Amino acid sequence: MTVETKLRELRARLLEIRDLGWAAAVLSWDQATYMPAAGAPGRARQLALLGRLEHERMTDPGLGRLLDVLAPYANEHDNDNARLIAVARRDFDKAIKVPASYVERANALGSASYSAWRQARPSNDFASMRPYLEKSLELTREYVEFFAPYQHMADPLIDDVDEGLTSAAIRALFDELRRELVPLVTAIANQAPADDRCLHGTFAERAQLEFGLKVATDFGYDLKHGRLDTSPHPFCTKFSDADIRITTRTYANDLSQGLFSTLHETGHALYEQGIAPELAGTPLGRGTSMAVHESQSRLWENVVGRSRNFWQHYYPKLQQEFPEQLEHTSRESFYRAINKVERSLIRTDADEVTYNLHIILRFDLELELLEGKLAVKELPEAWRERYERDLAITPPDDRDGCLQDVHWYSGGIGGAFHSYAIGNILAAQFYAAALRAHPDIPDEIGAGKFTTLRQWLTENLYRHGRRFKPAEIVARATGEPMTIKPYMAYLRSKYGELYRL
Amino acid sequence: MTVETKLRELRARLLEIRDLGWAAAVLSWDQATYMPAAGAPGRARQLALLGRLEHERMTDPGLGRLLDVLAPYANEHDNDNARLIAVARRDFDKAIKVPASYVERANALGSASYSAWRQARPSNDFASMRPYLEKSLELTREYVEFFAPYQHMADPLIDDVDEGLTSAAIRALFDELRRELVPLVTAIANQAPADDRCLHGTFAERAQLEFGLKVATDFGYDLKHGRLDTSPHPFCTKFSDADIRITTRTYANDLSQGLFSTLHETGHALYEQGIAPELAGTPLGRGTSMAVHESQSRLWENVVGRSRNFWQHYYPKLQQEFPEQLEHTSRESFYRAINKVERSLIRTDADEVTYNLHIILRFDLELELLEGKLAVKELPEAWRERYERDLAITPPDDRDGCLQDVHWYSGGIGGAFHSYAIGNILAAQFYAAALRAHPDIPDEIGAGKFTTLRQWLTENLYRHGRRFKPAEIVARATGEPMTIKPYMAYLRSKYGELYRL
Repeated sequence: MTVETKLRELRARLLEIRDLGWAAAVLSWDQATYMPAAGAPGRARQLALLGRLEHERMTDPGLGRLLDVLAPYANEHDNDNARLIAVARRDFDKAIKVPASYVERANALGSASYSAWRQARPSNDFASMRPYLEKSLELTREYVEFFAPYQHMADPLIDDVDEGLTSAAIRALFDELRRELVPLVTAIANQAPADDRCLHGTFAERAQLEFGLKVATDFGYDLKHGRLDTSPHPFCTKFSDADIRITTRTYANDLSQGLFSTLHETGHALYEQGIAPELAGTPLGRGTSMAVHESQSRLWENVVGRSRNFWQHYYPKLQQEFPEQLEHTSRESFYRAINKVERSLIRTDADEVTYNLHIILRFDLELELLEGKLAVKELPEAWRERYERDLAITPPDDRDGCLQDVHWYSGGIGGAFHSYAIGNILAAQFYAAALRAHPDIPDEIGAGKFTTLRQWLTENLYRHGRRFKPAEIVARATGEPMTIKPYMAYLRSKYGELYRL
Repeated sequence: MTVETKLRELRARLLEIRDLGWAAAVLSWDQATYMPAAGAPGRARQLALLGRLEHERMTDPGLGRLLDVLAPYANEHDNDNARLIAVARRDFDKAIKVPASYVERANALGSASYSAWRQARPSNDFASMRPYLEKSLELTREYVEFFAPYQHMADPLIDDVDEGLTSAAIRALFDELRRELVPLVTAIANQAPADDRCLHGTFAERAQLEFGLKVATDFGYDLKHGRLDTSPHPFCTKFSDADIRITTRTYANDLSQGLFSTLHETGHALYEQGIAPELAGTPLGRGTSMAVHESQSRLWENVVGRSRNFWQHYYPKLQQEFPEQLEHTSRESFYRAINKVERSLIRTDADEVTYNLHIILRFDLELELLEGKLAVKELPEAWRERYERDLAITPPDDRDGCLQDVHWYSGGIGGAFHSYAIGNILAAQFYAAALRAHPDIPDEIGAGKFTTLRQWLTENLYRHGRRFKPAEIVARATGEPMTIKPYMAYLRSKYGELYRL
């Protein structure tokens, strides 16, 4: 058999794996958007079945033998086939290390823990979650052992979503970031707080959705290959290379949540829609990592969507949409409202400046839990201490304290939160690089044009999918390794001006 | 291993087959309701994959061996397990007779033919469809041979959807029906036609949808286990025993199409929602045959939804919904409009009286095509002759002649049309039996109450799923074998009064 035949077989196997995942994505999307609640047990069973079929194919020894035969071709660089073989090898090697029986146990614990959490959070009942959290920690440790040896227990978890990144690198980055952020937040807190009452009138949700979708399509989101629906938790999902959907959530009494959720998910969708057609249906045909993906949602949501230039163009349109509600609010007041900085309890409501402090403390606590330096029962107290130290506020209870995020209570401890903060950092770094190449981008944004920015991102990031590892694509696109400098410069410039620091 | 263990294994295997089918149903529903057109190639590939996985499981030799072991238990009657084994055996035996390679060829031809037909019909281009039709006929003959010996070539096709029914039985039934219908239609045609202009104003589609959904839930459609969406072709689909959905289609300038499509699909959904929970997830947990299923859609759409009593209750509500459009239309005029009888070209627009004539001639032509008595190239002429003979109208072209229905142009010739006519016949027969048990049903309908009717249908038909064969359930529920008498009595009474015959 020729290499071409072998490659064709590889692509066919990988496409089948992708198709099973995409079929499952349709079922999950329907569950989140339209399914009546009573459909849940059947849907869970069907998703488990599709997951099992996908896992069987991902770990098929025949795939391993095929990859062995093709291994010599993975060494050539600058060649999609070589990279395809390497990525498929990496995915296969990771998948076969985890026994199917483990996956089942972990999924079962995840579902049980999630159900318990849905009760426990509103009842502020951390005690009832303790056994779940302890079991999750135990299963996480078991998982990590499949990937021994490692430098730190968190490393295999981080590598799953951000290839090549380590807890040591993140810790160094976060220490630096925290040193810079804490005084900035303190300086802002000493100023008069912004007034955001203009965001809390009554805004027809249909009009909110339409306005958000208009901006999304102006950004370049292609409705011929996607659509917007609503769901309790906004997300971006993919059913094939030609069908990339987003969801959002609106509140009648909060204009900003729905709009910025839409723009956030649009950023994810632009990345997926920008991937080169020749990578379609292969493991290369998706964003290169969780943190890089998050950089694009944050770039479009915050760097673009919360910029003064953006609202120069869109605020009159928003006023047209909501004339009564916004007639007495100036563009500048609105701009200040959507960029209000505030030390707050809830991560998902946090502004651009304080957000990362929420993340950093979660990351630190995760590492301590994994390392055994922090016992589960000590978590609420440790959480309170860190919020007091980093954000100068004291959570009044666990509901709005260490019970607030779903992550730890769905069976996963470690390997997710870091990417949200790195997403913010990289958003600024990519944007700064785009600006160096095209200094007129802010003016274009001020005219409601996004083509130059989107094309630069497509050319330097989106189209490559997983062709390059996260660190490689960052260096190629921005000319330097990941750094917090553009991010801190962005925050200092924007918020220094806003808060007259 | 005990019988219980074997039965558990059987149920688990059958549930997995059902779950693959249900997962595919979600993908098809999304394709028809929300998917952007560009998603089609990926979706087709995913559906083909799920179909192949389902077929592999349906024909797994391990399932055959299990059924062999369980065979002795299939002889006990009045026992769900016995019937489960028998039905699973029948499904398995049917599935293994058809090679996977045939299924692939037939699906490929079906898709190609359907695409060609979408072009050919608007261009009135029968010639371009001839090769597809000839190939479809050839493949149908090949299919039928898998089930040799048979009495008539159409019998295996009919048995696929209506177990136990034969072309000889249908032909006898249809001959009798045609003899009765043709003079009735002629008598009506000699009267002044009904005026249905009141249905063709401008009706907000959102309001049409809501009105239809209100009636559907009044009928008993349970939105906790279903929902209504829109699609170009209305259908009822099932994602699990707890999630049974319907779609409809509305036209601003036609009040009746959307409403009666909704009621039609509601009838299918009531059947599925009424199946006993203990049959859930097994091959017994669905309607017993295509014709019996159609009887329920027609019963709720026509026998109930086009009855005078029904509109006694609902017409004032409809007028409230569309006050300007209907203020000058009396209830009686509206009732006459929705029951207008007219010799027309298009089956799907046909009224209750002429509808079956459209079906019978299709059924006859199908048999002639299968028997080789009619060549494909002669079809347009044969079609015209039959329309002139049975309906006294001449199709001006093939577009509204033999090209009008999708069925023959999706790769299937035979085995579908008959069930539409039998559905009408059985609708009247089931309804007459319900009336014998509960003579107050029409009065309840006049008060917008449907509980007695729905409960009778649930008790005597719905809850049994596939526990009984079609002929058995008809005899059990109505006390006699299938007969056209209640149907003709229903038509004569209703239309005799309407047209003063």
